[in-house]
Amino acid sequence: MHYPSTIQNLIECLKKLPGIGEKTAERYALAFLDLDQDVIDLFSKSIADTKTKIKRCSRCNNLTEDDLCDICKNENRDKNLLCVVEDPKSIPLLERIGTYNGYYHVINGLISPLDGINPEDINLDRLINRIKEENIKEVIIAVKPSIEGETTSLYISKLLKDTDVIVTKIAHGVPLGTEIDYVDSLTLELALENRKKVDE
Amino acid sequence: MHYPSTIQNLIECLKKLPGIGEKTAERYALAFLDLDQDVIDLFSKSIADTKTKIKRCSRCNNLTEDDLCDICKNENRDKNLLCVVEDPKSIPLLERIGTYNGYYHVINGLISPLDGINPEDINLDRLINRIKEENIKEVIIAVKPSIEGETTSLYISKLLKDTDVIVTKIAHGVPLGTEIDYVDSLTLELALENRKKVDE
Repeated sequence: MHYPSTIQNLIECLKKLPGIGEKTAERYALAFLDLDQDVIDLFSKSIADTKTKIKRCSRCNNLTEDDLCDICKNENRDKNLLCVVEDPKSIPLLERIGTYNGYYHVINGLISPLDGINPEDINLDRLINRIKEENIKEVIIAVKPSIEGETTSLYISKLLKDTDVIVTKIAHGVPLGTEIDYVDSLTLELALENRKKVDE
Repeated sequence: MHYPSTIQNLIECLKKLPGIGEKTAERYALAFLDLDQDVIDLFSKSIADTKTKIKRCSRCNNLTEDDLCDICKNENRDKNLLCVVEDPKSIPLLERIGTYNGYYHVINGLISPLDGINPEDINLDRLINRIKEENIKEVIIAVKPSIEGETTSLYISKLLKDTDVIVTKIAHGVPLGTEIDYVDSLTLELALENRKKVDE
């Protein structure tokens, strides 16, 4: 313990973030001493607010501070399109491309029988109900290209077999096994353009 | 703006830390959502505390939450030795070696006429007064090996010429131009052992 306890605590907290080790945590912790008071205030408050203010959108599960997220609140988007993602983190990536103008739905994971994750665990009923209620024309599945992603796509497609809803998935421009978060916007844009119908 | 404002604010704050760009800030910001409440509380509080609780030790300028730092409070250290460092960050590095048992003094920079930093700007008077008052026997200078470091060492040595104080500096095991923060403990230990008298 060579630092005052405040710095020591800060180092321990920083080490909880992904990929931050002792040395980096130390460097960041000491950098806080040089930040301006207003940055410190905002930093401290924002961190506290992540637990109190950030909720899930009641319609699509996206991150929001209100009942509905900014995208669901926007009445001017294409009401025919619904893009299914695995994680709220995928939404900013897709939004950044700028070509998709429909709505989103975040499912809480992918079907993975080996991990004991079954269709009911990721609340697909709510997705299917929403698709029917909102009269969605096309469901675009934008999840990680993997066995679990394929299984989930096929399952959604099967659940919508008796409807007129077209189920598509983004093209496999994304290398297998890679997290969707790490793909550049161009690859993701191509993948979105080349989306194809899920074979039943 | 594809995130709720709390997350967006957190991203902006994280980008103020050294070496954190947009992508990394985003990744860290989202990671906060998965932290436990107690970590969030401590994190938020520690950051706020850096501005309110962390002060400089009234004797040696080290970081502290009290009037005196833990090292100055410790009466059992060697009262004959004083190690001069440029930055409070150097103290944990030297402490980690475990072989130095004297006290420290942090000067606020190094003499650098080109940058307009003169001896009076780094408060060497206070250092010299302290050395005399506390009857220090040896002053070990542990600053960055550079023109500025050499100049500062020589200047301190000159100011103590008429006293019995021995002025030494850590050996140049440290590669020139490298920040003392990035040197491994072993190199730093050797450098400390091989300290030599500053030639007047």
